[in-house]
Amino acid sequence: MTISAAIAELQTLLGDRLVTSQAVRALHGQNEAHFAPALPDAVAFPNDTAEVAQIVTICAAQGCPIIPFGAGSALEGQHLATQGGVSLDFANMNQILSISPEDLQITVQPGLTRIALNDALRDTGLFFSVDPGADATVGGMAATRASGTTAVRYGTMRENVLALEVVLADGRVIRTGSGARKSSSGYDLTHLMVGSEGTLGIITELTLKLHGLPEATSAASCVFDTVKDAVDAAILTIQSGLPVARIELLDEVMAEGFNLHAGTNLPLKPHLFLEFHGSAQSVAQQAEDFAAIAAEFGASDIRAATRAEDRTAMWKMRHSAHYATSALEPGKRTLATDVCVPISKLAEAVVLAQDEARRLGLKSAIVGHVGDGNFHCGVRCNMDDAEEWARVVEFTGLLSQTALRMGGTVTGEHGIGIGKQKYMRAEHGDALDVMRTLKAALDPQGILNPGKMLPAQE
Amino acid sequence: MTISAAIAELQTLLGDRLVTSQAVRALHGQNEAHFAPALPDAVAFPNDTAEVAQIVTICAAQGCPIIPFGAGSALEGQHLATQGGVSLDFANMNQILSISPEDLQITVQPGLTRIALNDALRDTGLFFSVDPGADATVGGMAATRASGTTAVRYGTMRENVLALEVVLADGRVIRTGSGARKSSSGYDLTHLMVGSEGTLGIITELTLKLHGLPEATSAASCVFDTVKDAVDAAILTIQSGLPVARIELLDEVMAEGFNLHAGTNLPLKPHLFLEFHGSAQSVAQQAEDFAAIAAEFGASDIRAATRAEDRTAMWKMRHSAHYATSALEPGKRTLATDVCVPISKLAEAVVLAQDEARRLGLKSAIVGHVGDGNFHCGVRCNMDDAEEWARVVEFTGLLSQTALRMGGTVTGEHGIGIGKQKYMRAEHGDALDVMRTLKAALDPQGILNPGKMLPAQE
Repeated sequence: MTISAAIAELQTLLGDRLVTSQAVRALHGQNEAHFAPALPDAVAFPNDTAEVAQIVTICAAQGCPIIPFGAGSALEGQHLATQGGVSLDFANMNQILSISPEDLQITVQPGLTRIALNDALRDTGLFFSVDPGADATVGGMAATRASGTTAVRYGTMRENVLALEVVLADGRVIRTGSGARKSSSGYDLTHLMVGSEGTLGIITELTLKLHGLPEATSAASCVFDTVKDAVDAAILTIQSGLPVARIELLDEVMAEGFNLHAGTNLPLKPHLFLEFHGSAQSVAQQAEDFAAIAAEFGASDIRAATRAEDRTAMWKMRHSAHYATSALEPGKRTLATDVCVPISKLAEAVVLAQDEARRLGLKSAIVGHVGDGNFHCGVRCNMDDAEEWARVVEFTGLLSQTALRMGGTVTGEHGIGIGKQKYMRAEHGDALDVMRTLKAALDPQGILNPGKMLPAQE
Repeated sequence: MTISAAIAELQTLLGDRLVTSQAVRALHGQNEAHFAPALPDAVAFPNDTAEVAQIVTICAAQGCPIIPFGAGSALEGQHLATQGGVSLDFANMNQILSISPEDLQITVQPGLTRIALNDALRDTGLFFSVDPGADATVGGMAATRASGTTAVRYGTMRENVLALEVVLADGRVIRTGSGARKSSSGYDLTHLMVGSEGTLGIITELTLKLHGLPEATSAASCVFDTVKDAVDAAILTIQSGLPVARIELLDEVMAEGFNLHAGTNLPLKPHLFLEFHGSAQSVAQQAEDFAAIAAEFGASDIRAATRAEDRTAMWKMRHSAHYATSALEPGKRTLATDVCVPISKLAEAVVLAQDEARRLGLKSAIVGHVGDGNFHCGVRCNMDDAEEWARVVEFTGLLSQTALRMGGTVTGEHGIGIGKQKYMRAEHGDALDVMRTLKAALDPQGILNPGKMLPAQE
């Protein structure tokens, strides 16, 4: 019972779609965050669900780890083969299986990326709303319970996955959910799988909610003197019930990153970027209502972006935040971390994050989906400098503890992976043991993405 | 190891809050649907979570079934003590623990009813949206994944429960979720518990989403010649992206029931009842847009209800549908069943339900949350007439099979309980075995609401 025996069997099954070259393994074992590379022993490229089930059956018999792989854009190391085994790359399973515009639904394979999905929807008047920074695959997005800039209005993957096909750890294939918008039939296995980071099952098909393109869209940006003013304006916007489609914070450090990366000329102050969806009338009203709120908090440079190309440029820039952070203190790596707090605590949390980064002498850029109480710090670090790394660890620890103290969560959208396991007990208490019980029940051998999400027994 | 030993121990713990009188047991063993009464051996009235945990610990040691009990309004027999044991009545755990208006959240005990909850919110400008017909408890609503007339806009209990405290089958107390609006930390135990009908854990505390009262509200009703016209108008309304807060169908039989029960004078034709939320301008626009759609399908008697008392009267009538159905063919019982289909299939499903009821000579009244693809049939039946009962069974079987054939679910909001277990395999396939695995992992003795949701092994 060995990994190499599994690979030999998989080679027979898949031929040249089972790859063991150093280059391909390295591609699947790297990451955009700060984690050390961790290469799989082989990479499998299944063509369909039946093949995924066969692969799992072979790996189960040999006790070989299986690591589902989408675009490799996970920020907490979810796709790294920390215990070796087979990386399961869904590049060949990236098709749209059916679209039902009347039901505002689409069924797709997990390897489809979010941009390709929206490109395919171009002529339908519909769109898929969830937009993490990277052009992630929808399978990876479901597995990590991803969200993005539009979650404040349209929800995260939690709200936008209706049904799944999943291959279990013993090779059985199940379907969860249905084509109905709601159901009270049976345990909610869809939500159990969404966000389980490939540790409970392997997603091979997804039925997703689509949304109608709004009749009108407009965007706005504005500048504040302090990050507290910016966040307080965002909080009041949400509490007032303004149905903003996006409300994004960037702090003065992030503005500097964008200027360096994208050649923009943003004032080095906190900004809010917003988008409004609705009828022409409603969009205009929302923009006006927001401007009144922003003015209360001393906003300046309130700009409307009504032209599509201006909006596109603004959101393209916003989505490049992870890369723009790399332009700050070049040569270092970015530790990308996120937390999510009750919105009433958001200003306090963001100010604390800025103060602590300053105190610790760290370059930390903040972007935030502030309508959800969720924000990210991209902290630059020379990974060879143990002393700097210790300060980064202190910073992220403070941030996570703060989020928990405020009744929030240590991650709003990046997930646990290998990076945040150390906070699982503090966040979940005895519920962590329940998660372990579920893992043991569904994957008794522990072959599905082992070493992720659930910390080793304390 | 017996039920009576458990009851003796519980009596020591709870004193006169452990009741074994026939009258109280009968109250907890009856139901508003068609199921035979099934009395618990005793009824416990815990005062707090610690007591619930103690009760569960005692029952676990004695192998005694525990049946969580809210308002007793479940329609699929979820609260019936079909295997005896202790009914856990949350009447003493009905408090609001905290309100955070800034976070649009409230934390409550499970025994609070939805109307009491909204009464307490009266001066806050906020409301709790989920509204099943009965004045159910929020604990029961979460356990059965309830929804209601506003799910089309504000979601079901699935979308409106943020966090839970749960007592497990071994007496451990866990917390799921957090005060953050979203999280990608750990398995989604909140959604696993919501809709599990008390079979995986006992809910002892809930954090719920609140919504801001809309600036303006208006309602409308209209009449159609055929149920297909009414449903097609509803479908187009949803597909057009009109953000209706409520869109409810009643068919001609239901109109007859309301006239008998409430003394109204509705034309004996299919109706749609709607509600619009938003700014004054937006509400007026929505009403206008809907009227244009309704006219396309030949609607007549389009009435606006802008006065609060008219709207209240209309929705009070709508919420009495279950009781109004009882006014049809007096002396019989109502078999209340619901299914949910993809919205593109809704007209076909509703027409089929009417045709089959007519063919089978049954009095079946239809009400539907048609914006969700969800509708209910209240079928009158003389329970002593085996031949009529056989026709009712044929009817509900056809309805469930139709929903599954259309890619839907056998229940949108009533749940499985004891009534719909026979469809679990057809709906979920091998996923039913996964549900059984989860049940065995979390409740290995099978003491939590035994005999509900999961059918005995086939």
